Amino acid sequence: MSEKGYVKEITNIDENIAQWYTDIVRKAELADYTDTKGCIAIRPYGYAIWENIQNYTDKKFKETGVKNTYFPVLIPESLLQKEKDHIEGFAPEVAWVTEAGGEQLEEKLCIRPTSETIISTLYSKWLSSWRDLPFVYNQWCNVLRWEKETRPFLRSREFLWQEGHTIHETAKEAQERTIQMLNIYADVVENLLAIPVIKGKKTETEKFAGADETYTIETMMYDGKALQSGTSHYFGQNFTKPFDIKFQNREGKQEYAYQTSWGISTRLIGGLIMAHGDNRGLKLPPRVAPVQVKIVPIAMQKEGVKEKTIQLYEKLKNKFRMEIDLRDNVTPGYKFNECEMKGIPVRIEIGPRDIENGECILVRRDTLEKTTIKLENIEEGLEKLLEDIQKNMYEICKKRMESKTTIAHTLEEFKANMDKEQGFIKAMWCGNAECEEKIKELTSAKSRCMPFEQEHIGDTCVCCGKKADKMVVWGRQY
Amino acid sequence: MSEKGYVKEITNIDENIAQWYTDIVRKAELADYTDTKGCIAIRPYGYAIWENIQNYTDKKFKETGVKNTYFPVLIPESLLQKEKDHIEGFAPEVAWVTEAGGEQLEEKLCIRPTSETIISTLYSKWLSSWRDLPFVYNQWCNVLRWEKETRPFLRSREFLWQEGHTIHETAKEAQERTIQMLNIYADVVENLLAIPVIKGKKTETEKFAGADETYTIETMMYDGKALQSGTSHYFGQNFTKPFDIKFQNREGKQEYAYQTSWGISTRLIGGLIMAHGDNRGLKLPPRVAPVQVKIVPIAMQKEGVKEKTIQLYEKLKNKFRMEIDLRDNVTPGYKFNECEMKGIPVRIEIGPRDIENGECILVRRDTLEKTTIKLENIEEGLEKLLEDIQKNMYEICKKRMESKTTIAHTLEEFKANMDKEQGFIKAMWCGNAECEEKIKELTSAKSRCMPFEQEHIGDTCVCCGKKADKMVVWGRQY
Repeated sequence: MSEKGYVKEITNIDENIAQWYTDIVRKAELADYTDTKGCIAIRPYGYAIWENIQNYTDKKFKETGVKNTYFPVLIPESLLQKEKDHIEGFAPEVAWVTEAGGEQLEEKLCIRPTSETIISTLYSKWLSSWRDLPFVYNQWCNVLRWEKETRPFLRSREFLWQEGHTIHETAKEAQERTIQMLNIYADVVENLLAIPVIKGKKTETEKFAGADETYTIETMMYDGKALQSGTSHYFGQNFTKPFDIKFQNREGKQEYAYQTSWGISTRLIGGLIMAHGDNRGLKLPPRVAPVQVKIVPIAMQKEGVKEKTIQLYEKLKNKFRMEIDLRDNVTPGYKFNECEMKGIPVRIEIGPRDIENGECILVRRDTLEKTTIKLENIEEGLEKLLEDIQKNMYEICKKRMESKTTIAHTLEEFKANMDKEQGFIKAMWCGNAECEEKIKELTSAKSRCMPFEQEHIGDTCVCCGKKADKMVVWGRQY
Repeated sequence: MSEKGYVKEITNIDENIAQWYTDIVRKAELADYTDTKGCIAIRPYGYAIWENIQNYTDKKFKETGVKNTYFPVLIPESLLQKEKDHIEGFAPEVAWVTEAGGEQLEEKLCIRPTSETIISTLYSKWLSSWRDLPFVYNQWCNVLRWEKETRPFLRSREFLWQEGHTIHETAKEAQERTIQMLNIYADVVENLLAIPVIKGKKTETEKFAGADETYTIETMMYDGKALQSGTSHYFGQNFTKPFDIKFQNREGKQEYAYQTSWGISTRLIGGLIMAHGDNRGLKLPPRVAPVQVKIVPIAMQKEGVKEKTIQLYEKLKNKFRMEIDLRDNVTPGYKFNECEMKGIPVRIEIGPRDIENGECILVRRDTLEKTTIKLENIEEGLEKLLEDIQKNMYEICKKRMESKTTIAHTLEEFKANMDKEQGFIKAMWCGNAECEEKIKELTSAKSRCMPFEQEHIGDTCVCCGKKADKMVVWGRQY
């Protein structure tokens, strides 16, 4: 890396956000392209973000009784085909193992694109009585979907995710679990990643292949495009019937169980980059940042500076996720740029004069604001600052989402709004898939969801003008 | 499950340990067979053991500077072929993806059997100067090896593991890392899993495909057979040369880096079962047990029993990994059997008379010994008991290993020892692979390792009688 620093090396976000995104992924050392086309290598800094997401989410899961498991990565073709809509949805994008151990296989095996089918065969074996229910199981694993166009994190052929799969005694209990998990996802994205979400239900066209109902959390990126950030599905008995997942109910009769599944993935890292980043690089909310505070000494060659820097690091390292940069082959300016590129929430600068005054300088990444603080107040100062950065980053996204959300009553208005500035559009919809399709053709905007928080903005469909009672949020998507 | 309880339903360990093993895996609900031949589903109870192993190990890793990453599950054929010994070793047992996204692939992709090749291509991209070194990266992931004969956990086609891959500036540093990680594995197996290990170096015949040196921890199972429980490899420049992993050294010259890799897997769960289990089922050391203590009320219908049981549970649940069994459709006897089958280290029994006396009964799984304890002393009592169980389980394995280890000076003696009782045999070896092969043919015992702790038991090879200065531990293996 050159001494010129990072800033000049990345594309301007307002000129070409796609290229900017790729630059950030690579310069911040989050991930890299590999010889396996469409698949990325997640580097330590990127993976540490994923670990923080995992830890937070897994704890929330377990508080609601989720248990982790592991099911095979390979699924026989005959299993994948058991649920009609499911195979139609996934068959075009699976990868097939046809040879193994030096021989052609009798039946080819796909690499899981999702695991409803293989898990359902086991649930069928394990379930016998209502007393066994519910099964509330999850797995953290890799999945593969052979996408034609790929982008690191946002749409990678292989990605990491968790997939929860539950079965229940009653439809009501399953439906409640579907919403419960959606709420956990909203918590993760809003409170950990500092990105506001819209919670709602997908339309028939946009729901998961094989589901009765799909719920989603939708987020808005820097450029006003939407990112589907987590989904939770209610299957009813769509899989439990073909997979024969039944139990003796309280009346002593055989009944098919009610099923759900839900997932979030490494796509969230793409969301973090796109929601918060700027022309200096990544910007990480403190709660998810692998490094929350980095100390950079100034004039390190001067007597006592290095020692004092190390002393400060030692004092703080058990309280915050800290790093110290003692390299002597790059300038402080280079180190500052690097901190900013990597989105480290707070940088501490400390030089001879600061030491003399018993102070240091805190530079926050979100606003680049500098403040001087007495060394004796550093711990509570950092604590407050990190909390403030977390809140401020959320607020900035929230304001952006508000300012880039418009209302449309007619198709002309819809198109004009979208042409003026990419963002979310709230509009009434009659429930007809043809209207949805027409809007997509005209504006490239898809229905994001029917938000739980409905607003009354009219009584007629934005497309066909017929009676409509559902408000839909629309937007172009990643 | 029937009221007859578990005990009668499992095969006697001394009659047919293979069948006993399968029975335990299924009855203790650790794992199950799936429609994907040779691949298992790890059930919540089995997976919780793996999570405890992961948490313990990952913490130790991070204390030594290991960083987690993720690399693609698919490896192009051309990459796998770059290191000659490596492809020879792994080609026969890989699975190939030949079709994806509805098309035949131009180059087939294997599912990783291990990731040296794909990781090496990225290390080559990321490394430029000695200042970048070392890379000490690891991934927790799934791998696939198309074994002909499979057994749950011990030899499954797909298994979960961690694979660490490091590169270093000097051979010495890489060699030290190889041993450092072996020592962490020994710590995990001895201190968490309560199974004593023999640390040593593999012979040329038994080393990893592509390594200069392979180090191992070997453990002994109930029946005297060996289980290779973790390995750490020093590669020298075997991969860094073909993969062009070089850096500018301190003298300004280009040099190839020095590499290691190391791994442990879900096979350790198989080791836990086989080292500790008995005719009542699984026996888990407290430190790794998902449930350390289970409370079973006696005469639950009697006034106050249920309440007192819950009260006790509430008191203890933040201190120990606890469960409470309040089912009213099975007898206490059934619950006891289930606790034993699942290997729960301590069971608390509490009934009306105990409550009257302010007491409860502790039953330890390792010895089945019962003690009565005053309720006010329960916390420290449990703490001591769990610690004692952990120690005792280790001691039992240690004594078994000692009693089933013999010394042989001649091939006749070797064969006689092995025929008498399966176990480890210490014998001198000349270093010739032909002698190793001959011993294997005659006795089915393979060289386990050349232990770090060498003993002088003679000066001539147990096979050919020529001069020998290496003591080798031999044994039949899982």
